[in-house]
Amino acid sequence: MSDLILYSLPHSPYAARVRMQLNLKGIAAAIEAPPEGLGSASFKALTPTGKVPVLKAGDQHLPESIAIMEFLEERYPEPALLQGSDLERGWCRSATRFVDLGLAPALFPLFSQLRAKPRDEALIERSLVEMKKQLSILSQFIERSPAPLLDAKAPAFFDCVLTPVMFYITTIAPLFGDKTILEGQEPLATWWADIQEHAQVSKLLDEMRAGLAAMMGG
Amino acid sequence: MSDLILYSLPHSPYAARVRMQLNLKGIAAAIEAPPEGLGSASFKALTPTGKVPVLKAGDQHLPESIAIMEFLEERYPEPALLQGSDLERGWCRSATRFVDLGLAPALFPLFSQLRAKPRDEALIERSLVEMKKQLSILSQFIERSPAPLLDAKAPAFFDCVLTPVMFYITTIAPLFGDKTILEGQEPLATWWADIQEHAQVSKLLDEMRAGLAAMMGG
Repeated sequence: MSDLILYSLPHSPYAARVRMQLNLKGIAAAIEAPPEGLGSASFKALTPTGKVPVLKAGDQHLPESIAIMEFLEERYPEPALLQGSDLERGWCRSATRFVDLGLAPALFPLFSQLRAKPRDEALIERSLVEMKKQLSILSQFIERSPAPLLDAKAPAFFDCVLTPVMFYITTIAPLFGDKTILEGQEPLATWWADIQEHAQVSKLLDEMRAGLAAMMGG
Repeated sequence: MSDLILYSLPHSPYAARVRMQLNLKGIAAAIEAPPEGLGSASFKALTPTGKVPVLKAGDQHLPESIAIMEFLEERYPEPALLQGSDLERGWCRSATRFVDLGLAPALFPLFSQLRAKPRDEALIERSLVEMKKQLSILSQFIERSPAPLLDAKAPAFFDCVLTPVMFYITTIAPLFGDKTILEGQEPLATWWADIQEHAQVSKLLDEMRAGLAAMMGG
């Protein structure tokens, strides 16, 4: 048993990517909600941003999902999920950064509209167009990478990063009437269909679905 | 002579952090503007996002500043700028991520107001308050890190990341009448005063200042 605690919430895509990595690497870690809640003073004492995930390793705490994932690759090198040549790892990091600086932010306006009454239909339409633009750029990262970035059969680092974000994209776009958000985005769409069949991923997505339902119902 | 070209623009804080790293590591690389310009089809053929920096290494191109910096640390390990224990490197990566997901985005509304006529004074005031909040969180990263994140005398990875962003924060806030943006943010403010005296940094900041002036005057 490792000496790790991951402070996590089921619906957080940033926490879910670390849980996926822990599962794929077979690292035993306790998964816990933030002690006394996300907004509590005791949790803010553990991390400057007050956000999940935070990894407790021994008596130290490390915030930020990608920093945690890089740390886990260094401390638990086998099985390696971030591998290949330096340039291949570079493209994986580059695409990862695009997910968090380009793709995921395109979701934020749609999140804000989920409970809005009345909805801002013009904002929703603009946001869905923007999301498709960002998905096209993502498809270019996938196409241009010197090594495959995605592998639904043997998921690695970038599969962990993208899966929870793709869960939100494909869950939320249909709520605004867009059922074709991945249309024309091959091989991304095929990867997404396939990876949902992966046993560990399927379980992770069930956790996220239940977490999202609990959050929306709360 | 290495086989590297960095596609860069003088005013870009994301390109400037890579130039600073190249200088500190003593890596010889050609620094070039995007061939045929930032928006050109030929540059977009090199990178999915169309943004600088992009590193050409041999016949391959790698986009995204932090992916490039990690690549350079791997390919040219000496002198190491990202070092220490796995947890210490983890905190450096965590703070780096905060700069790009929390601190730098707080600048965007102020950029948008630089040439606005009339200016949206309420937006400017909110943005300056938000900037101070993000600087306080940054100060917490600096305080809580298990190893020093900043070193004005011997700059390393995080100094490279933060310096060009701090240039913009301390250049733009006074343009909106705020000359105390770093007040109360110690040891950040002292570091910023000191690192501007570093010979290589001073030269970099001159390049950024000239680049910004050219862009604003254009």
